[in-house]
Amino acid sequence: MTSLGMIEAAAGRLEGHARRTPMLNSPFLDEIAGRRVLVKPECLQHTGSFKFRGGWSAVSALEPQVRARGVIAFSSGNHAQGVAMAARQHRIGAVIVMPSDAPATKIANTRALGAEVVLYDRATQDRDAIGADLAGKRGLSLIRPFDEPQVIAGQGTVGLEIAQQAAAHGVSEADVLIPCGGGGLSSGIALALEGRAPGLRARTVEPAGFDDVARSLASGRIERNNRLSGSICDAIVTPEPGRITFPILQRLCGPGLAVSDDDALHAMALGFSRLRIVAEPGGAVALAAALLHGSELRGDAVIAVVSGGNVDAALFCTALERFAP
Amino acid sequence: MTSLGMIEAAAGRLEGHARRTPMLNSPFLDEIAGRRVLVKPECLQHTGSFKFRGGWSAVSALEPQVRARGVIAFSSGNHAQGVAMAARQHRIGAVIVMPSDAPATKIANTRALGAEVVLYDRATQDRDAIGADLAGKRGLSLIRPFDEPQVIAGQGTVGLEIAQQAAAHGVSEADVLIPCGGGGLSSGIALALEGRAPGLRARTVEPAGFDDVARSLASGRIERNNRLSGSICDAIVTPEPGRITFPILQRLCGPGLAVSDDDALHAMALGFSRLRIVAEPGGAVALAAALLHGSELRGDAVIAVVSGGNVDAALFCTALERFAP
Repeated sequence: MTSLGMIEAAAGRLEGHARRTPMLNSPFLDEIAGRRVLVKPECLQHTGSFKFRGGWSAVSALEPQVRARGVIAFSSGNHAQGVAMAARQHRIGAVIVMPSDAPATKIANTRALGAEVVLYDRATQDRDAIGADLAGKRGLSLIRPFDEPQVIAGQGTVGLEIAQQAAAHGVSEADVLIPCGGGGLSSGIALALEGRAPGLRARTVEPAGFDDVARSLASGRIERNNRLSGSICDAIVTPEPGRITFPILQRLCGPGLAVSDDDALHAMALGFSRLRIVAEPGGAVALAAALLHGSELRGDAVIAVVSGGNVDAALFCTALERFAP
Repeated sequence: MTSLGMIEAAAGRLEGHARRTPMLNSPFLDEIAGRRVLVKPECLQHTGSFKFRGGWSAVSALEPQVRARGVIAFSSGNHAQGVAMAARQHRIGAVIVMPSDAPATKIANTRALGAEVVLYDRATQDRDAIGADLAGKRGLSLIRPFDEPQVIAGQGTVGLEIAQQAAAHGVSEADVLIPCGGGGLSSGIALALEGRAPGLRARTVEPAGFDDVARSLASGRIERNNRLSGSICDAIVTPEPGRITFPILQRLCGPGLAVSDDDALHAMALGFSRLRIVAEPGGAVALAAALLHGSELRGDAVIAVVSGGNVDAALFCTALERFAP
C-alpha cells in the first residue's frame, strides 16, 4: 500500500532524473475561470507525460538482480514511453507489448526509446498470455500502469511538488483537478496532499460518457464504462477504477467531474494561447474543468494538472481552429 | 553599463515574480542534432516571452517616487506585454504606444494586462514625438526594449539560470544560441555566462536576410538591415544592433548565425512534438540553428533559448502541417 513515506522515497529516487515541472498561471485564465488558476504542466515531463515518474519509480524500486533481467509493460501510449525511457536510463531491457494496429508513430517512438516492441493481433491473440509467456521465460518484471504501489508512489511526486508550489503561490485551500484513467496519478497526488497540504482537495476529471471513477465515487462501489471507444481523450479511458487506486480515491477525493470532448479541445486551445504548452485531449480535461465548470468547484483558487502532451498535429490544429482566440 | 553584479541584483528583484523556466531536452532532438541539445523555454515565462524579465527589472529599479508616476514603452509585441504586466504588478500605470494597424489581439491583450494603449498612425504621426510629449506631461519613465542597462540586466537572469542548469546537466562547454533582435537578451546572457560559466559561449541567431548583428560582428561595425519586413520572425527584426548591446556582443559572442523561415517553422514543429512547447517563429530560430545547422557549431552539446511563444494559431498550424512528424 502506497504511503507518504513511499512517495517521498520515490521523490528521492527521481531526483535529478524526472523534471520538476513549473507551476504556470495567466491573468487571462483567471478571468475566464473567475478565480485564480494554477496549472501543473506534466506535458513538460520526460516523454511528454507524468508516466515517466511512475515508470522510473517502479524500475528503480526493483532489486538490482531482478531489475537486471528487464521489465515488461502493456501499453500503446504514454505508459509505454515512460517505462521505455526509465528502463533505458537504468541500462536494462524493456519489452513493450502493443497492439499491431497502434499508430505507427507510437510504435516508432517506443522503439526509438530503446524498447523491444512485441506486437499482437487484438482479434486473435491474448495479450496477457503473450506477456506472461515472455515474462516467465526471460524473468521480466511487469510494470502495471496504475494498480502498482510503486507506480502510484512515483505519480504522487507530482502531489509533493504541487503542495510546495501552491504554498509558494500563497494557495493553501483549493480543489486540485486531475485527469483520471485508472487512478494512478489521482491516488498518488491525493496521498501526497493528505500528508503535505491538507487544505488541497484532489478531484478526478474524466471524459463525459467515460466517467467510471465519478460514478464509482458516487455509488461507493466500482462501476464500469459501457464502452471504451468514442472519446478523443483515449489516453484516460479505462474500463473501471483500479482495485488498489479506488479505495484511496474513495477515502480522499471530492466528487468526480466530467467534461465534454469540446471542453477538452477548448482547454487545449487556451493552453496554447495563454500558457504556450501543448496538451493532449485527455491531458486537458482537468484544465477544462477548472476553466469551464467553475460552478462545480469551491474556493478562490483552483489547481489543474495537465497530465500529457502527446497529440497528433492534426487534432491539435482542430482544437486551435475551433477555439483559439 | 550592465555588470554581472547588476544581473545578480536583477535576479534578486525578480525572485518570486519571474518564473525560473526549466531546462528541457529530448533524445529525439539529440539524434537530429548529432549532439546533446538543452533547451531553455522562455516561452513559458509570464506574458510568453523573456521580455517580462527586462520589464520587471527596469520597473523595479526605478526610484519609488519616479516609478509611482508610471512608465511608457513603444512596442506592438512582446515588450509591450512584458512592461504592461510588470507595471501592473507594481501597481503603477503603463502607457504603451502602438501603431494603429497592430493586430487587434495584441492591442486587446496589452489593454487586458492593464496598460493604457495609445495608438498612432504610422503614415502621418511621429511615434517618438507622441511618446516624448506624454512622458514629459505626465512624468513617465521610458522603458526601452533593449538599449537600457537595467533591461539588459533583467534579460541576463536567463543566463544565470542557464549557467546553473547546464552545470546540473553536466554541460560545461557548449555554444549557447540566442534569438537576437536588438541584442538585449543576447548581451545579458553573454555577460552572465562570462561571469558564471566561461565555457559556455553566447552566439546570436537571426532570420536570414535580416542578419544585421551577424554582419556587424563580422565587420566590426554596426551594419543595418536593408529592409524590415518580409520575415515571419517579425519579433526579432530590428534595424540594427543596439548602441549599448553591440559592444557587449562584440566582446563576448562567437560568430552570428542565420536561419531561414522554413528552418524556424521546422523547429516550431519539433518543439511541439518533442518538447510540447509553443514557440513563435522568431523565438524558434536558435532551436532551428541547434537542430539544423550543426556544422556551424562546435562541441558535444548545444544550448538553445526559445525566447517567446506568442504566435497566431494559423501560423502555428502551418508549421505543424509542413514539418510535424
